[in-house]
Amino acid sequence: MVLEKIQKANDIKNLEPEELEVLAKEIRSFLIEKISCTGGHLASNLGVVELTMALHLALDFPEDKLIWDVGHQAYTHKLLTGRKAGFDDLRKYGGMSGFPKRKESDCDAFDTGHSSTSISAGLGYVAARDIQKQKYHVVSVIGDGSLTGGMAYEALNNAAHVKSNFIIVLNDNNMSISPNVGGVSNYLSGLRTATAYTELKRGVEDTLKKIPVKGEKLVSQIKKTKSGLKQFLVPGMFFEDMGITYLGPVDGHDIRKLYKVFSEAKRLNHAVLVHVLTKKGKGYLPAEENPSRFHGTPPFVIETGEAKQKSEKDSYTDVFSKVITDVGKKDEKVVTITAAMADGTGLNRFAKHFPDRFFDVGIAEEHALTFAAGLAAGGMKPVVALYSSFLQRAYDQAIHDVCLQNLPVVLAVDRAGLVGSDGETHQGLFDLSFLTTIPNMTIMSPKNRWEMADMVRYAIDFQYPIALRYPRGAAYEGFKEFRAPIEYGKSEMLYQESEIAIIFVGHMAKLAKDVREELKNRGYSCTLVNARFVKPLDKEMLVQLAANHRIYVTIEENVLSGGFGQQVLDCVERERLDVYVHSFGIPDDYVEHGNVDVLRKEVGLEKTNIVEKIITDYNIARNE
Amino acid sequence: MVLEKIQKANDIKNLEPEELEVLAKEIRSFLIEKISCTGGHLASNLGVVELTMALHLALDFPEDKLIWDVGHQAYTHKLLTGRKAGFDDLRKYGGMSGFPKRKESDCDAFDTGHSSTSISAGLGYVAARDIQKQKYHVVSVIGDGSLTGGMAYEALNNAAHVKSNFIIVLNDNNMSISPNVGGVSNYLSGLRTATAYTELKRGVEDTLKKIPVKGEKLVSQIKKTKSGLKQFLVPGMFFEDMGITYLGPVDGHDIRKLYKVFSEAKRLNHAVLVHVLTKKGKGYLPAEENPSRFHGTPPFVIETGEAKQKSEKDSYTDVFSKVITDVGKKDEKVVTITAAMADGTGLNRFAKHFPDRFFDVGIAEEHALTFAAGLAAGGMKPVVALYSSFLQRAYDQAIHDVCLQNLPVVLAVDRAGLVGSDGETHQGLFDLSFLTTIPNMTIMSPKNRWEMADMVRYAIDFQYPIALRYPRGAAYEGFKEFRAPIEYGKSEMLYQESEIAIIFVGHMAKLAKDVREELKNRGYSCTLVNARFVKPLDKEMLVQLAANHRIYVTIEENVLSGGFGQQVLDCVERERLDVYVHSFGIPDDYVEHGNVDVLRKEVGLEKTNIVEKIITDYNIARNE
Repeated sequence: MVLEKIQKANDIKNLEPEELEVLAKEIRSFLIEKISCTGGHLASNLGVVELTMALHLALDFPEDKLIWDVGHQAYTHKLLTGRKAGFDDLRKYGGMSGFPKRKESDCDAFDTGHSSTSISAGLGYVAARDIQKQKYHVVSVIGDGSLTGGMAYEALNNAAHVKSNFIIVLNDNNMSISPNVGGVSNYLSGLRTATAYTELKRGVEDTLKKIPVKGEKLVSQIKKTKSGLKQFLVPGMFFEDMGITYLGPVDGHDIRKLYKVFSEAKRLNHAVLVHVLTKKGKGYLPAEENPSRFHGTPPFVIETGEAKQKSEKDSYTDVFSKVITDVGKKDEKVVTITAAMADGTGLNRFAKHFPDRFFDVGIAEEHALTFAAGLAAGGMKPVVALYSSFLQRAYDQAIHDVCLQNLPVVLAVDRAGLVGSDGETHQGLFDLSFLTTIPNMTIMSPKNRWEMADMVRYAIDFQYPIALRYPRGAAYEGFKEFRAPIEYGKSEMLYQESEIAIIFVGHMAKLAKDVREELKNRGYSCTLVNARFVKPLDKEMLVQLAANHRIYVTIEENVLSGGFGQQVLDCVERERLDVYVHSFGIPDDYVEHGNVDVLRKEVGLEKTNIVEKIITDYNIARNE
Repeated sequence: MVLEKIQKANDIKNLEPEELEVLAKEIRSFLIEKISCTGGHLASNLGVVELTMALHLALDFPEDKLIWDVGHQAYTHKLLTGRKAGFDDLRKYGGMSGFPKRKESDCDAFDTGHSSTSISAGLGYVAARDIQKQKYHVVSVIGDGSLTGGMAYEALNNAAHVKSNFIIVLNDNNMSISPNVGGVSNYLSGLRTATAYTELKRGVEDTLKKIPVKGEKLVSQIKKTKSGLKQFLVPGMFFEDMGITYLGPVDGHDIRKLYKVFSEAKRLNHAVLVHVLTKKGKGYLPAEENPSRFHGTPPFVIETGEAKQKSEKDSYTDVFSKVITDVGKKDEKVVTITAAMADGTGLNRFAKHFPDRFFDVGIAEEHALTFAAGLAAGGMKPVVALYSSFLQRAYDQAIHDVCLQNLPVVLAVDRAGLVGSDGETHQGLFDLSFLTTIPNMTIMSPKNRWEMADMVRYAIDFQYPIALRYPRGAAYEGFKEFRAPIEYGKSEMLYQESEIAIIFVGHMAKLAKDVREELKNRGYSCTLVNARFVKPLDKEMLVQLAANHRIYVTIEENVLSGGFGQQVLDCVERERLDVYVHSFGIPDDYVEHGNVDVLRKEVGLEKTNIVEKIITDYNIARNE
């Protein structure tokens, strides 16, 4: 095994040239085998095996800085920097992260997870290096999908200033998570096929030189302007226009060619973009044929590519997918928008039925919300489906474009709460807080699959900004018997007793039910309320319950700061209710990767912990 | 007066051709005169007089939709849509807004204020129109400065899909608020001078046609690819590459030419960008010579251009400007970053002294924060100075790039709190809430100019993410006698008494002092505490004061939801302190434009209101 020879960074440089291709094969086999057991990002990692190897041949670690955009494609990089053993516990709690982490290795220069940040971070390193007169190389690897995100372009615009070496590797596999969209994508497609350029260039120059008088004048005139000859002769003028040298396209599976172009790129004293063509899923047929399915995959059978365990139950996303499509049939004003998450949000179904009313805007959350605001201003009912952690990107647009004008935009906030193995960058733990700050915003969260369906319909009919927040994973099927119609700002009473009132948000339903049952078993009286609305609060309910309750317990999967619990406490204080409020939620810290149940335990969102604390509170309250 | 003939939308179409230039002159005189009295945005409005007139000649209002990016350049549009009388109360409380407002006129298609949103909103209207099979034109006017913002590019990328008419007017005055930066700016500069193209184009085509055999082959090959002949012949390939037709450049002060190109643009069945060259401040020499100074101006003397009232006192921004420059002299690791706000944030002084350690990244807040994170990872001490309302754009980057890695980035959050006449879109009322939600973040706010200076120095020496929040306007000079050293997480006791404790955040110092004095006059005992840190809370202080206080009063200029007051209340509840908490702050609503003192009164941040409520609270607490 050649892979055995790779124990730490730079070991790859000691290999014989003929061993490199063997290593690439072994890495692929290794990744397929490991990910088939643990689950993880497969297609993107198989696509960059040679690219990563060539970078490791051309660079020195940890001196040189390599920044992976999004970061889910850094598995080979982890392998080549001594983290082979980590793949047994990949993405498990306490185990190796599926993303680059500075605390995991000094060869990881910058933590990533969200899209389109790598050029910005790389430019930061470049500036720091130059100011301190240090010598190292900085390389940002960015996918073509990430180029649909605005901040990548903000960074490219600034890269033009760089007067020292900075290498941007465009890993072009012609898709992001979903197939790509937009003008840039079309443009890159054009470049992909532009292989005849080098020959063409010589021919044109020769020809132009031969044109007498008029031609000479022409050439000199052309040379004067930036939009002249160069534009004619060089592909990648889009980048050249921004002041960035373009090299490519290069076959992303040819280590020798890659090494050569990276070595060339290292010599330039400004920003250079190396355009590398790769194939997502390369070397594993099921992933080549269906890269979206193998973007992030659960454990699977290698022979067939089929998932080892299929969830029988519908997820909240499935429910959303079905209901929004159904609503779309009846209401022609309904349009849906997502940001490169058509599969993940379930909007692919809507898209199939109503291609003219579905918009995948690319990895462009900011645009998504303002575009939706424009649609609403134009008389439509837009629904924007995004993951909670990516919605953070559009906080200002929610404030400034949607809610300020009080426009009827529905935010379908998927993956809200703990998401599990993707870890810190992907947990959706802030949305209740940041959405609550926004005037004119309404926020709902469903307790089970039937309420999810009802809330989707309610949101569509609502005439103002409204967010519907729901988690990853199977929709809860408990509390089926409770299905009172949704009423604006009204909570739902599930069990009305006295003394202790548990008020939960959305998918904390199951936990809240368990807590109540345990309290009942221990002889306590306990009311159970489904909040339904996080904003506005059901003040009336809070006031009424105060008559015969001593403590309110709130349970939410969101940071405590600014969350539901604090809003309840605020109401209790303003109304001078004689009730003690104990809020359970996510403490003020990042939550790493791992199984969601394990994570919940870690943060204290767990039956025993909550029950014990409630009993303590209750006893204090009773003795007061 | 030709202007007298313009009473409502479309009246301009009834003018004789020779009256148009007269009207342009009259509009300029009108704007200069009015803004010299009220203050407002001058330079940008003088630049688009003809552009706006031509749009009004080419479009029908309110049927057609015109969206102004940022929106501070819409004064002529307001004049041409019957809002002349509004200029007497421009930007005053209850008066006309300085930005487009849908509630002000049905000729304002979309509210704006922040940068780079107009193409997104325009695309929303276009999609809504097409789905509903309506017929109207959609025009987004965007400045070249706004093109440095990433979301404009996200939108441009999506504009390539449009299969119906959509006009983007690029109002190119070669600067945003400050002179422009970056590759795109350089590129546009190139286009500006590319006037000889039409003639050149014919020449080249003829010449190429004359080349036999080899040439013929050449031409046919070139025509196959998008990056071929067209790129050679047409300026604006940057836009053409994205799938957007480019028309221009056009003289932005020639109404006839503008009208012609807009009429042409209206006929296309896809997205078209019209590149218009304008001069900021056009027609008023002081503004032409110093457009930055006349971007947003206070009332001024027309003859000289000088401000009528000059503030004698330093603003918080001035203090920041001086101290950060001083710190920069001693510490070579300090670098500063702003997003097209070098003047506004006072970083121009630092930039003058340390041009190599200053970065204006354009209107690119997202990039700014991640770039700073990269700088910090590379060993520098970056300080990012932004306005509070624009920092909203970088919420995710603060979570994902700065705080997750716990990097020592200083956020200098200027214009925090009420900003006054710019109104809803510019008030900085959310930062305490959204920053508090972020793990690893520390938040400070100074009570007066001396504490501001101390806090700047403290922040630079701090080894983790830290935000320093301060308002627009003159730095408070009270409490000069209190200048204890800043200690991490510690509040500052100003007057220690009992019963009532007022705890204020930052520039609420003066109001808190007034409230306390009034309470003292009325015979109440009252402690006064300067919070200093909003995060972490000074828990120890809160616990200690509970021993001999009945109520805590918090005062902050931030929304109540998730703000300082709620954090104090949360602490009081968790610590089971026997204290009633009354939080004063901004209620859950947008705050419109107007004088800051008037606005404070409106939202209840005012002495009498607070005193009365405290006394009520206190009496209830005493009787409990």
